[in-house]
Amino acid sequence: MTPLIDDSLKEAFGDAVRKSRLSAGLSQEKLAELADIHRTYIGDVERGLRNIALVNMYRISAALGVPLSSIIRDMEKSIDASGTI
Amino acid sequence: MTPLIDDSLKEAFGDAVRKSRLSAGLSQEKLAELADIHRTYIGDVERGLRNIALVNMYRISAALGVPLSSIIRDMEKSIDASGTI
Repeated sequence: MTPLIDDSLKEAFGDAVRKSRLSAGLSQEKLAELADIHRTYIGDVERGLRNIALVNMYRISAALGVPLSSIIRDMEKSIDASGTI
Repeated sequence: MTPLIDDSLKEAFGDAVRKSRLSAGLSQEKLAELADIHRTYIGDVERGLRNIALVNMYRISAALGVPLSSIIRDMEKSIDASGTI
């Protein structure tokens, strides 16, 4: 896979996290506190700047109160819609 | 989260990958080739030794021909069943 495709993937994941965070009515600060992850890292994830790994993905989904599989499914829908991958 | 919980998560992800790989009738070598990831890395993932990140997760799911959300859902089922998280 190319770096461009990897970037689209990270951006789609970030969009899915942001959407879920806003649905939960949480600020980045509150999500960071609940997930025990630094706020700037959450911001980076939402902007598609991080190739986030399993453990932090799971912490974020648990803090949002949604299954990680739902966030990943949202990411897949956004990828399918954009046709970038 | 504790290191013990993180380990359970990585193991559950590895189990889900192995299950999906066996369903696809692929060897670790073949999956590694299709995903363009080193074979020993695939082995480590299946044994729960890697905190695998988004891009490699996606490469593996694409090579297996299954949505990443399905693999994550399998992981969640296995976590729920074991009651470890």
